[in-house]
Amino acid sequence: MIDQLIRNIKRTGAPVVVGLDPVLGYVPAQIQKKAFAEFGETLEGASEAIWEFNKQIVDAVCDLIPAVKPQIAMYEQYGIPGLVCYERTVSYCQSKGLVVIGDIKRGDIGSTSESYAIGHLGHVQVGSREFTGFHEDFSTVNPYLGSDGVKPFLKVCKQENKGIFLLVKTSNPSSGEFQDRLIDGKPLYEHVAEKVNEWGSDMIGEEGYSSVGAVVGATYPEQGRLLRKVMPKSYILVPGYGAQGGKGEDLVDFFNEDGLGAIVNSSRGIICAYQKDSYASIGEENFADASRQAVLDMIEDINGALEKA
Amino acid sequence: MIDQLIRNIKRTGAPVVVGLDPVLGYVPAQIQKKAFAEFGETLEGASEAIWEFNKQIVDAVCDLIPAVKPQIAMYEQYGIPGLVCYERTVSYCQSKGLVVIGDIKRGDIGSTSESYAIGHLGHVQVGSREFTGFHEDFSTVNPYLGSDGVKPFLKVCKQENKGIFLLVKTSNPSSGEFQDRLIDGKPLYEHVAEKVNEWGSDMIGEEGYSSVGAVVGATYPEQGRLLRKVMPKSYILVPGYGAQGGKGEDLVDFFNEDGLGAIVNSSRGIICAYQKDSYASIGEENFADASRQAVLDMIEDINGALEKA
Repeated sequence: MIDQLIRNIKRTGAPVVVGLDPVLGYVPAQIQKKAFAEFGETLEGASEAIWEFNKQIVDAVCDLIPAVKPQIAMYEQYGIPGLVCYERTVSYCQSKGLVVIGDIKRGDIGSTSESYAIGHLGHVQVGSREFTGFHEDFSTVNPYLGSDGVKPFLKVCKQENKGIFLLVKTSNPSSGEFQDRLIDGKPLYEHVAEKVNEWGSDMIGEEGYSSVGAVVGATYPEQGRLLRKVMPKSYILVPGYGAQGGKGEDLVDFFNEDGLGAIVNSSRGIICAYQKDSYASIGEENFADASRQAVLDMIEDINGALEKA
Repeated sequence: MIDQLIRNIKRTGAPVVVGLDPVLGYVPAQIQKKAFAEFGETLEGASEAIWEFNKQIVDAVCDLIPAVKPQIAMYEQYGIPGLVCYERTVSYCQSKGLVVIGDIKRGDIGSTSESYAIGHLGHVQVGSREFTGFHEDFSTVNPYLGSDGVKPFLKVCKQENKGIFLLVKTSNPSSGEFQDRLIDGKPLYEHVAEKVNEWGSDMIGEEGYSSVGAVVGATYPEQGRLLRKVMPKSYILVPGYGAQGGKGEDLVDFFNEDGLGAIVNSSRGIICAYQKDSYASIGEENFADASRQAVLDMIEDINGALEKA
């Protein structure tokens, strides 16, 4: 699946991923009104509104980008109907040829971690038959529990040709509270990165990269430079661009010399583009066009910075 | 909610929690057959079988115990029908007066963490109305992302009178890979424990304990002794008893002198008791009776060790 992701990136020329992290407040009033008219002010109504919002954005940007990253928390808050919308979004994006990175940040131990891996990346056995649950292509994984928590994901990834991105250095201000603490002279995130490199060493695809990637925030470019070298074969998923403050020029060192090795996420910056002053003239009813323009601008910003570097 | 948990513990005299972590392989053949006859070999059929299994166990043990801990990963692997079964199990246990600890190990940053907190412990706004998603009483939370990830949970807990248990030292063999590494002369888990103590300091209930608890594995009794002192006001949720090797005598130091402060989980040891040699004579068709006997034996083991100490 890492090969599929890289081929999509090469085809589009866009090392970007659109974060589908909607809440009801992002959805234009007209779409909410229509969904509530059909389903009432219910969890089903909220989920229908979010689904319609997602669909229009995906239709508007799918030819420009290699991948999407739906954030499951945003759907999970709407209970079962929210998760139905999540699964529907995953399926729809895959039908459009997009690679889907489920931002689920799961992590547990042993058979419990394996259950998460099965539910999100694998097949579950029921009697004589097999089913998929949420069937993302990649998922994000939390490493705090160590190898016992990660290895079941690796097992399922190998069986199913899927991949994961492990949290290494997250984009938030307080990520340093634990992740930056020095252990034997090196920050915790560097120790985690060394394990990422080790865990992914026997999962290198045809394009030269591992199915085991890492999450490193755009808000920490210096750490990005270091971590790029610690995990040369790992794709880095970079959140924090746009709304969290990261800019194109901050991202150069997350990439390898081959121009590959990183994929940059923007969520609110794309899906809420219509609410920003710079795209306001496009109009709320054309929110998906605003998202398309924001994707084009993001690609230009990042590729411009990479060309200059 | 921490007060409710402690009152339940005092009433039952049982500092134990039953982990409802079923997979289809644990469910007696007769129950599977009946569910498949109605729903086919489908995710719905699997979830119906698991629901019936859970219900019979809960009916058999609910008068003996203060709380249950369903592990959401086990349900999530069966996709949407699995999560419907999870929510149904949470509701049913609450209707029986049990406190429900959702073992979800979620954790993200900012509005994303808040979405998880809302989905599992809070209310979500839809137009003019409010709904609950999974409405557990407590949830487990992963601290790797730092305060930004935890504070949204604290906010929702205060609003809703709920609680959390943060992962501090997990019960698995490789938990030391990151958690035991020394930072300024102290292991990472101790730094996390100090934050747990701080985060929970303004959330102390009438019974003298905080709504912010911690997870510390039964398999690490020495660390338990230390962590008990670092977080004197935090309830400790102790996994790893039974199937993972922890015994009653290992648990004494997880408790405070008031006999409170810890609650010990057993999952497979209870729900699969009928498969163990020691309960085999009870018979597969009476699996819930075997679970009841296993709960009684566990309570005796732990209370016996506490009395001796």
